[in-house]
Amino acid sequence: MNNPKQIAGEKAAEYIENGMCVGLGTGSTAYFAIQKIGQRVKEEGLQVKCLATSKESEQLAKELNIPIYTFDEIKELDVTIDGADEVDKNYNLIKGGGGALLREKIIAYITKHYIIIADESKVVDTLGKFHLPVEVVQFGWQITFSHLQQLGCIPKLREKNNEVFITDNGNYILDCDFTEIKNPKTLQANIHAVPGVVEVGLFIERVNTLIVGHKDGSIEVKSIK
Amino acid sequence: MNNPKQIAGEKAAEYIENGMCVGLGTGSTAYFAIQKIGQRVKEEGLQVKCLATSKESEQLAKELNIPIYTFDEIKELDVTIDGADEVDKNYNLIKGGGGALLREKIIAYITKHYIIIADESKVVDTLGKFHLPVEVVQFGWQITFSHLQQLGCIPKLREKNNEVFITDNGNYILDCDFTEIKNPKTLQANIHAVPGVVEVGLFIERVNTLIVGHKDGSIEVKSIK
Repeated sequence: MNNPKQIAGEKAAEYIENGMCVGLGTGSTAYFAIQKIGQRVKEEGLQVKCLATSKESEQLAKELNIPIYTFDEIKELDVTIDGADEVDKNYNLIKGGGGALLREKIIAYITKHYIIIADESKVVDTLGKFHLPVEVVQFGWQITFSHLQQLGCIPKLREKNNEVFITDNGNYILDCDFTEIKNPKTLQANIHAVPGVVEVGLFIERVNTLIVGHKDGSIEVKSIK
Repeated sequence: MNNPKQIAGEKAAEYIENGMCVGLGTGSTAYFAIQKIGQRVKEEGLQVKCLATSKESEQLAKELNIPIYTFDEIKELDVTIDGADEVDKNYNLIKGGGGALLREKIIAYITKHYIIIADESKVVDTLGKFHLPVEVVQFGWQITFSHLQQLGCIPKLREKNNEVFITDNGNYILDCDFTEIKNPKTLQANIHAVPGVVEVGLFIERVNTLIVGHKDGSIEVKSIK
């Protein structure tokens, strides 16, 4: 079994203990973590309460008989396992390629132990090759667009099936090509200061454990704090 | 004529010149500025292109035959005249008591000459007696609420006519009682970093001219930059 996404995802599932509140991420790597948690629920009788970062992951979890709760019922998570679009050498992330940016960020911020899983292709020195997703209010979005441009990127209004993509919150996504993000923390503050910005796909100083799967079948586990 | 709102509003209308693009504010002081601009359109044939910060002001302007445009048609404003809920000694503002926070902020940020009009009761040493409006996404708002609490305030979900108030963008407003805001710039950055926050009612280092009307009929004009 040399699928780097699968070995990272399954490794992360080992961190889940009986009785924990768990955040379930979204994407092709998180998929394997959720599958493994489902297997542990079935085979070991593992008991967990979960929140999902997307409707897709919620659906998958339900099919695997993993108990899903809501934000009204769970205010804090013991562990969250999620993927990332890019991870830099300081363990800062770009996320939100899938569009569930706000939900992913809320879950990240109520999590005690935040585990990011990735295949080796996601690990970079400097963020920015992956376009940074910025969720913006529809009203006046053209103005928000030109303010973001002034921060040094080429923004592009996200489309899906030839129509403008609309988030669960009724907003647009601008995918911003910065090529190279040298100071993600400053950039995040500058983007947030632009009127009309709801959320930014930068996750700064948030990761506790990074699990990277390699093509040769090896796993790298880094504990950050 | 000793209505301090009226003398401030009418004074500001003098700054409008023929051919300008003008932002029209909202509230009981901006009302007088709009009235005066309408009078100048009628009596002097003043030609302006206007954007309004709210539907109410748009309606008022139309009744006065002031030409109203949209964000698609106007990308930059020569002058905006708007009120504030509080103005501190460094000319930082709390705005958004009326709920049109995002629209007010977008207009403020595309304006070359931003004029704030106020009666003397709005001028304070330190911001914070007026509750700071924070626009938040409905999804997971309870979590956003508790994160804001951790920044040292008592937030309150805004209601109108016994129902939860919903902004033009489909969001909620949390009116946050900080009592005293010693460093508005830092606070703004901290609030923006909270997942779920769309906009904050702090306007930092934005005012170019402040016009204050006093009860004794005098007017104070401060040019800031």
